[in-house]
Amino acid sequence: MRRPTDKLSHYDEAGRARMVDVSAKAETRREAVAEAFVELSKAVLKALSKNPKGNPLEVARIAGIQAAKQTAALIPMCHPLALSFVDVEAMVAAGGVRLRATAATTAATGVEMEAMVAASVAALTVYDMTKALDKGIRIRDVALLRKSGGKSGSIGGSASHKAPPRGCWLTGGIPPKSPIIFKKSMLGLDLIWIRSGLSLDLVETVEG
Amino acid sequence: MRRPTDKLSHYDEAGRARMVDVSAKAETRREAVAEAFVELSKAVLKALSKNPKGNPLEVARIAGIQAAKQTAALIPMCHPLALSFVDVEAMVAAGGVRLRATAATTAATGVEMEAMVAASVAALTVYDMTKALDKGIRIRDVALLRKSGGKSGSIGGSASHKAPPRGCWLTGGIPPKSPIIFKKSMLGLDLIWIRSGLSLDLVETVEG
Amino acid sequence: MRRPTDKLSHYDEAGRARMVDVSAKAETRREAVAEAFVELSKAVLKALSKNPKGNPLEVARIAGIQAAKQTAALIPMCHPLALSFVDVEAMVAAGGVRLRATAATTAATGVEMEAMVAASVAALTVYDMTKALDKGIRIRDVALLRKSGGKSGSIGGSASHKAPPRGCWLTGGIPPKSPIIFKKSMLGLDLIWIRSGLSLDLVETVEG
Amino acid sequence: MRRPTDKLSHYDEAGRARMVDVSAKAETRREAVAEAFVELSKAVLKALSKNPKGNPLEVARIAGIQAAKQTAALIPMCHPLALSFVDVEAMVAAGGVRLRATAATTAATGVEMEAMVAASVAALTVYDMTKALDKGIRIRDVALLRKSGGKSGSIGGSASHKAPPRGCWLTGGIPPKSPIIFKKSMLGLDLIWIRSGLSLDLVETVEG
Amino acid sequence: MRRPTDKLSHYDEAGRARMVDVSAKAETRREAVAEAFVELSKAVLKALSKNPKGNPLEVARIAGIQAAKQTAALIPMCHPLALSFVDVEAMVAAGGVRLRATAATTAATGVEMEAMVAASVAALTVYDMTKALDKGIRIRDVALLRKSGGKSGSIGGSASHKAPPRGCWLTGGIPPKSPIIFKKSMLGLDLIWIRSGLSLDLVETVEG
Amino acid sequence: MRRPTDKLSHYDEAGRARMVDVSAKAETRREAVAEAFVELSKAVLKALSKNPKGNPLEVARIAGIQAAKQTAALIPMCHPLALSFVDVEAMVAAGGVRLRATAATTAATGVEMEAMVAASVAALTVYDMTKALDKGIRIRDVALLRKSGGKSGSIGGSASHKAPPRGCWLTGGIPPKSPIIFKKSMLGLDLIWIRSGLSLDLVETVEG
Repeated sequence: MRRPTDKLSHYDEAGRARMVDVSAKAETRREAVAEAFVELSKAVLKALSKNPKGNPLEVARIAGIQAAKQTAALIPMCHPLALSFVDVEAMVAAGGVRLRATAATTAATGVEMEAMVAASVAALTVYDMTKALDKGIRIRDVALLRKSGGKSGSIGGSASHKAPPRGCWLTGGIPPKSPIIFKKSMLGLDLIWIRSGLSLDLVETVEG
Repeated sequence: MRRPTDKLSHYDEAGRARMVDVSAKAETRREAVAEAFVELSKAVLKALSKNPKGNPLEVARIAGIQAAKQTAALIPMCHPLALSFVDVEAMVAAGGVRLRATAATTAATGVEMEAMVAASVAALTVYDMTKALDKGIRIRDVALLRKSGGKSGSIGGSASHKAPPRGCWLTGGIPPKSPIIFKKSMLGLDLIWIRSGLSLDLVETVEG
Repeated sequence: MRRPTDKLSHYDEAGRARMVDVSAKAETRREAVAEAFVELSKAVLKALSKNPKGNPLEVARIAGIQAAKQTAALIPMCHPLALSFVDVEAMVAAGGVRLRATAATTAATGVEMEAMVAASVAALTVYDMTKALDKGIRIRDVALLRKSGGKSGSIGGSASHKAPPRGCWLTGGIPPKSPIIFKKSMLGLDLIWIRSGLSLDLVETVEG
Repeated sequence: MRRPTDKLSHYDEAGRARMVDVSAKAETRREAVAEAFVELSKAVLKALSKNPKGNPLEVARIAGIQAAKQTAALIPMCHPLALSFVDVEAMVAAGGVRLRATAATTAATGVEMEAMVAASVAALTVYDMTKALDKGIRIRDVALLRKSGGKSGSIGGSASHKAPPRGCWLTGGIPPKSPIIFKKSMLGLDLIWIRSGLSLDLVETVEG
Repeated sequence: MRRPTDKLSHYDEAGRARMVDVSAKAETRREAVAEAFVELSKAVLKALSKNPKGNPLEVARIAGIQAAKQTAALIPMCHPLALSFVDVEAMVAAGGVRLRATAATTAATGVEMEAMVAASVAALTVYDMTKALDKGIRIRDVALLRKSGGKSGSIGGSASHKAPPRGCWLTGGIPPKSPIIFKKSMLGLDLIWIRSGLSLDLVETVEG
Repeated sequence: MRRPTDKLSHYDEAGRARMVDVSAKAETRREAVAEAFVELSKAVLKALSKNPKGNPLEVARIAGIQAAKQTAALIPMCHPLALSFVDVEAMVAAGGVRLRATAATTAATGVEMEAMVAASVAALTVYDMTKALDKGIRIRDVALLRKSGGKSGSIGGSASHKAPPRGCWLTGGIPPKSPIIFKKSMLGLDLIWIRSGLSLDLVETVEG
C-alpha cells in the first residue's frame, strides 16, 4: 500500500538537506491524522478525573492546535502554509491519555508534520501537567495514523506496526458513529471494544 | 527516590489550570536530560548513513536546540526563562535514531520541559527527513532521563521503566569516557555494549 | 442586517471548542475594519503633540500591523492565512487616541480577528508609551466596524452600539474625502465635525 | 497616590521613542493586575452557559496566559523578561465576560504590559468564540487594576475611573475569601454584592 | 532593464508607511536569489575547514532557511505568505564565506525580502560561530542577485554594482555546470576562475 | 587589543556545534554596539527626505528593536536572555543610511548578536522600503563597533578594518557631544567632519 521512495526526504542529489520545491504541485485538499500516547499510572489517571473544575486535557488540546500552526517554525524543512483545519482530541485510555491530531490544507504540500507536531505538543502538555505526580511518565508512540490527498493518495495504518490501544474520548464520550462491539464492567472500569481503523481495540473509561 | 505529590501540577485548589508562581524559588543551577527515540527500519538507517555530504542528524539537532527556546510558547503552563545551556545529541542505535537533549538554567524553575521539547522536536525532524522512505516510522519513548537542582534534588531513571536501548553517538563516535564492556561484529554491524546510567546497554553502529 | 447564528463559533455538536474547517470555502477578497480607542487625559494628549522628533503614534501603527500577522498564533481557533493587506491608522480624537485597523485576504476565511488584534495591539502600544504620565489610562471600545466578502456579505456598524467618537487623523490630516460639516476653534483647539459612517462625530485636533 | 511624570514613557530627550534602560534597576517581585470586559447580549451569555462539554472561557484563559509571554514581541518598547507567574481568570458578569490577568516577575522592570496583553488577548478570544452569535459584541475597558513592586510602589484603582462591574468567577465560583455583603435573586439571576478592592461591587451569576 | 518607480515602496499618497495591497495581483511563480558575504581572515577560514566532525556552515544554512519563514514577522511591511521553496547555500570563497539564498512562492507578492532575510541571518550565524576567533569579522554585501516572476519580470545583477567575489561551494564542491575557466595552485590554495553571472570570478578553495 | 581564541565559538572538543554553557558566568552589565550601512543612490536619499508625513527610518528603527528580542530564535547557538536595553539609531550619511544598534543585558552572556541582528534587520527594512526605487540597493558592512562587560572586557573598532563613513543622525541631529571638526556646504549638502571613535569621519546631511 505504501510507496516508499529509495531516498531521504529533503535531500538533493548532492546529499544536502533542502526543502522540497512545491511550486508545481496541485492544490487539493490534503489531510493527515496523527496520534500520540502518554503512558500514565492508574494513580495519575484517577487524579485527572478527580479534577473538580477544569478539564485538564483541554489545555493539552489547545496547546496542540496552537503548535500545529508553528510547524514550519519548528521543523526546518517544512513549508509555511495556510491550514484550513486543525483539531486535537484528547481521550483517557487504558494506560494513559491518547491525543489524536487532524490537520488539513488546500495548499500544495502535505500536512503530516502539522498533525505530528500537534499530537506531540499536546502530549508534552499532558506530561507537563501530570509530571508532579510521577516522574516516570513517558510519551509513547507518536505516529501518523493516516493521510489523504496529494500524489501518493491515501495511506492507512501499517499492519507491521501495532495499533496503539484505543480509549473512549474523554471530552466527548464514545465518538458518535463508533461501531461498539461489546461493553463490560471489570474492576470498577467500564471496558468497551470498538472497531478503530483496521483493528479491534480495547476501550476503557476511567472510574467514575 | 522520587517524591511525587498527590495532585496535578499546574492546578490550584479550585481545580483550575494555572502556572506555578516561582517568584520565591531560589535561583540555583538546574539541569534536565530527556530522550526520544525514532524507530526506523534497517533500510532507512542505511539510507541515513549513505548520505554523501551533509549529516542528516545535524538538522535534527539544530531544530531541537531551537525548539527548546520556544518551550514557553508551546507549553501553556511553562514559564518563559533564560536558558544557560541547551544541547541535543543525535545517535544511530539498534533500531532507529536516539535524540538526547540537555537543558540548563540558573532561573527559579526547572527545565524538564525544555529538554522534553528539544528531544521531541529533534525526533519530529528526523521523522520529517525520513518519512518519504517509510510511512510506518514512529517516535517512541520521549521521556525524562534525569534532572538535578531545585527542591526535589536529583532524579534518575526509574527502575519501573525500561531504559531505552543505547547506541553509539553518530556525530561523535562512542562518548569519550564510556566504559565499553565488550564489542563484537555480527551481521555486518559492530555491536558494542556500554554501561549507560544504571543499565548495561547494547550499542550498535550502522554498517560502514 | 446581521444574520447571527444560534450557536457559538468554534464549537462542534458535542460542545467541544474547535477550529472551523474552511477547506471548501470559496476564495474571494475579504476585508475587515476594526477600531480601538485609548482614553487619555488632556495633559497626555498635549504631551503627545509636544514630542519634538518622532511621531509617537507611528510606533503604535507598526506594532498593530505586525500583530495582525501573529493573529493565528495569539487566538487559538484562528486559521493561519496569507494576508494581502494590513494597515493601522492612528488619530488623536476628542478624549484620546483612536486606532483603526484594516485587514484583507483572498483566503477562504474572514479577517475580523486580524483587524481586531491589530487595533488592540496598537492601542496597547499607545497605552505603553503614555502610561508614565497617567496610570488611569484605559482602552475603551475595541470593536469591529465593518467587514465585507464571504458568505455573510457586508456587515456595517450596529445601531444598537453607540459609535465611538471620531477624530481627525493625526498622521494624515483629515481623510481626503471626509465630508467636513463644520469647523470651529475653541479653547485653543480646532474642533471639526465630520460624517463618519452612520453618525455625526466631533473631530478635534490637538493644539499646535 | 499616583506619581505621574511629566513626559511620555519610552522617549529620550530628543523625542525619539526608545526602550528604557533597566540595567541598574533593583530586582524585586513586581506584580500587575489588569482587566478587560467583553460586552455580550443576554442571548450570547445564555449560549455560553449552555455549552455542554467544554468551558468556552477556558480557551480564552489559556490564550491570555500564552499571550502574556509574547508581550515583548508585540509591544515594541517592552523588555523581554522572565515571568514568575501569569494567570487569567474569566468570569461571567452582568452584561458580559470579564477577564482578569495577573503577571509577576522578579526582574528589573514592571509587568503592567504583560497583564494588559493577557487581558486583551483573552478578551479577543472570547470575542472570536462568540462573534457568530452577534456581530455587535465589543471589548470595553481594558485597564490596569493595580500594580505593586518597583520604584513607584503600589498603585490601586483611580477614583476618577469607574471600577468595572464585577461578576462571580465562572471557572471557580465566588473567590474563596470574598467578603460577600449580600445576595438576592432577581429576574431569574442570582445577584451578589462583594467587596472587591476599594469598592462595593455587584456580582451577578448567569441563569441556570 | 530595471523599471524603478519614482517613489518609496510602502508609502501611500500622504506619505504614510503602509503595506501594499496585493489582493488583485496574479498568482504566478516568483523567485528571488540574494547573497551575503562574511569577510573572514585566513586564520578563521583555516579553522572552519579544520573542524573535524560537523560542517559549521550547515548551522548557518538551516538558520537562514528558518529565518526566511519569519520574514513577515521581522520586516514590518512584508506580507505573510506561503513559501513553496527556500534554500541557502554556503560556500567558502577567497576572503570569507558566501551565503546564497533562494526563495520562491506562487503567492501574489514577491519574495525578495525572504531571500534577503535568509542570506542575512545565515551570514549572522556564520559571524556568531566565528566571532571568538576574530572580533573584526564583518558582513559585507547583502544584496539581491536576481528575481523572476511578477509584473516587473526578471531582474538580474546591475552592472553599476560590483559583483562580489565568487567561491567554490564548500558543501557541494564546484556547482555541477559551472564553466571553469582555469585552475591553478598558489600559496597552498587551489585557485579557480569560473564564470558567474556577468563576471569572471576568482574562486578559491581553502587548504586541505 | 583583541584576544582571539584559537578555535571556533560554539564547538566542543569533538567538533560538534553547541551552545556555550553560561551557568557559571558572572552577571554584570554587558553592552554591544553594531552598525549596518545601506548603500543608496542620491535619488533614493532625496526621496527619503521628501516623504511628507512619516519618517521612513522610524519603521526601520522599530523593526530593529523588535528583531533584537528575537535573536535567540534566529541564531541557533544564541542563548535566550533578558535584555535591559535595546536601541537602534538611523541616520542618513554620505552614500546611504546607517543603522546603529545598541543592546545591553545584565545576564551572564554577551549581547553582540542582539546588536548585530538589530542592525541587520533595521537595514533590511530600509532596503524593503526603498527597493521599488532602485533594485541595486545593497547592505554593506554589518559589523560590531564595540562591546563592554564580560570576561574579555571592552573591545573597540579594529584599525585593520576601515571605519564606515559616519553621518549626522537624521532622527536626532548631530549627537550632543560630538566634537565637530569643521563644517562646509558643498553641492547643496551640508558636510560636517566629526571625530567618531578612532577616526575622523565625513558627516553629510541630506539637502533640506
